[in-house]
Amino acid sequence: MIDYKIFELGNCVLQSGATLRDAKLAYKTYGNLNADKSNVIVYPTWYSGQHYDNEWLIGEGMALDPEKYFIIVPNMLGNGLSSSPSNTPPPYDRARFPNVTFYDNVKLQHRLVTENFGIEKIALVVGWSMGAGQTYQWGVSYQDMVERIFPFCGSAKTSLHNIVFLEGVKAALQADFAWEAGWYKEQPTKGLRAVARVYAGWGFSQAFYREKIYIQQGYSSLEDFLVAFWEGFFLRRDANNLLTMLWTWQNGNIGETPGFDGNFEQALGAIKAKAIVMPGQTDLYFPPEDNEYEVKYMPNALLRPIPSIWGHFAGGGANPVDTKFIDDSLKELLAS
Amino acid sequence: MIDYKIFELGNCVLQSGATLRDAKLAYKTYGNLNADKSNVIVYPTWYSGQHYDNEWLIGEGMALDPEKYFIIVPNMLGNGLSSSPSNTPPPYDRARFPNVTFYDNVKLQHRLVTENFGIEKIALVVGWSMGAGQTYQWGVSYQDMVERIFPFCGSAKTSLHNIVFLEGVKAALQADFAWEAGWYKEQPTKGLRAVARVYAGWGFSQAFYREKIYIQQGYSSLEDFLVAFWEGFFLRRDANNLLTMLWTWQNGNIGETPGFDGNFEQALGAIKAKAIVMPGQTDLYFPPEDNEYEVKYMPNALLRPIPSIWGHFAGGGANPVDTKFIDDSLKELLAS
Repeated sequence: MIDYKIFELGNCVLQSGATLRDAKLAYKTYGNLNADKSNVIVYPTWYSGQHYDNEWLIGEGMALDPEKYFIIVPNMLGNGLSSSPSNTPPPYDRARFPNVTFYDNVKLQHRLVTENFGIEKIALVVGWSMGAGQTYQWGVSYQDMVERIFPFCGSAKTSLHNIVFLEGVKAALQADFAWEAGWYKEQPTKGLRAVARVYAGWGFSQAFYREKIYIQQGYSSLEDFLVAFWEGFFLRRDANNLLTMLWTWQNGNIGETPGFDGNFEQALGAIKAKAIVMPGQTDLYFPPEDNEYEVKYMPNALLRPIPSIWGHFAGGGANPVDTKFIDDSLKELLAS
Repeated sequence: MIDYKIFELGNCVLQSGATLRDAKLAYKTYGNLNADKSNVIVYPTWYSGQHYDNEWLIGEGMALDPEKYFIIVPNMLGNGLSSSPSNTPPPYDRARFPNVTFYDNVKLQHRLVTENFGIEKIALVVGWSMGAGQTYQWGVSYQDMVERIFPFCGSAKTSLHNIVFLEGVKAALQADFAWEAGWYKEQPTKGLRAVARVYAGWGFSQAFYREKIYIQQGYSSLEDFLVAFWEGFFLRRDANNLLTMLWTWQNGNIGETPGFDGNFEQALGAIKAKAIVMPGQTDLYFPPEDNEYEVKYMPNALLRPIPSIWGHFAGGGANPVDTKFIDDSLKELLAS
């Protein structure tokens, strides 16, 4: 059962100069748009996540309450539902899918919001991880449209260390002979399983493993967690899709928004939206220090780390304590 | 020019029950053994390091001064010079090389020290990383023989998170078709390069990359650092050797020393040697917290982190400030 809609974008010229032909944005909405269109929340997806993976933060009584808000969840390009290597017809399919940036993603999302819904103001953009990258981008690309942003466990510019972490992920996938430079007949499962094991050490903190939180989560051993959660997670993904999103991630930098000429600090300064920037205290690839730097240049932003040993997955929705922390801050931001 | 000697050990029964036949320990010594054999330092090697890789911490005027001490550097099993998959004749060659533990390594090193040199007391055992693992093991296996230990950037029991990090390294190597389950004709270079990129994010801290210390070190860009330093580092290694040492590392646990029945805390308590335990403050896979726990159970130990952003490589000898910090503490320990 398909629970999402497709917005047809036609031919879109990308930041790189390539054209994404017959581009499609898959999205789902929650709640109803009110009469003056003032109750809009945009909530982009993360690395390989799809709209339903965002639903843990949406619900009655929560900050993102569909009774109050009209919540649009656009799927990121490359995630398998919006235009992606896996669903684009030749000649731009598979290994030929063009590179897309956060800027491109948000530009197409903006068209969905304005052309399809006639929306002029957005009360809040919120997102986890690469969703946070899109959130910052919204704040820069559409400074007068976005009233609040709430990026959590992400960054406005992908740090050098984060780029290196992703090099490891990419190399593990591409080491698999079956990858065939993107022209595989079947998924390179050995490479996907290697990606899973590389990712496992980064996704959660040292303390998460030290305290064996995975046992409390219903896994019977460390190896069971690596296979059932991590390998299961990546075996569901398409290799080229993962590489497309990985390129987007590695090249994340709001300073590259047209008009800022690479000036990251100036781009941060252009974000007018009221912001709470929320790193995970023990996130290994989006460490709080990088957000601390950002907030210094954002005119209207507050830094508030999640006091959690869940690492990056403090923002993943699996830990009720962290979810409450995020939700409470979202309520505070929406009330302001 | 061969600058090391081989100690022939004959057939050695390992902790696993397997026999390492015609086992060989490669070692090098620095300085002279004094008359009462009271000036002995043992300084084991680390993951894929060989004796000459330890020489940065040895020198006139340094704590490890060959004018004063007789320094023995035994090469770890699997490192390509001591018995290893790459140099053992069939049938125990290559993928059939048996699993060896830190306990096994130290037992053979003890035979070198006692049988070959007639040494009864060791003034100091010191080691970095897996060398630290061997250092703790010396303290437990030969409690009355070892007067001081100085493990830096390592642990007495490999943490669960560290095991996961190594799973990523292993999976990246084994994803390469050319690995052929260890029966490769040529080195699986794609896998070795993937290992390098996975390792790169772990070896140095987030701040090391943030501050682009690699540029100060003479690399022209991040990619140059990944290729010249990291890929160069691992392309010199034999894949089966790496996997043998990785198994040793993942299974590091002094609690598994015979007599302790898996009781880690009791084994820590049995270390009589005076100790300085020195983590790197920003080490991502041997974080200070694990050493903090250890020191609580060691009767005669002090915790002293290296205040450095070099991550694990604070103990690698490339940063003079960190080297001085280590050397000063070694002098203090030796003087006590």
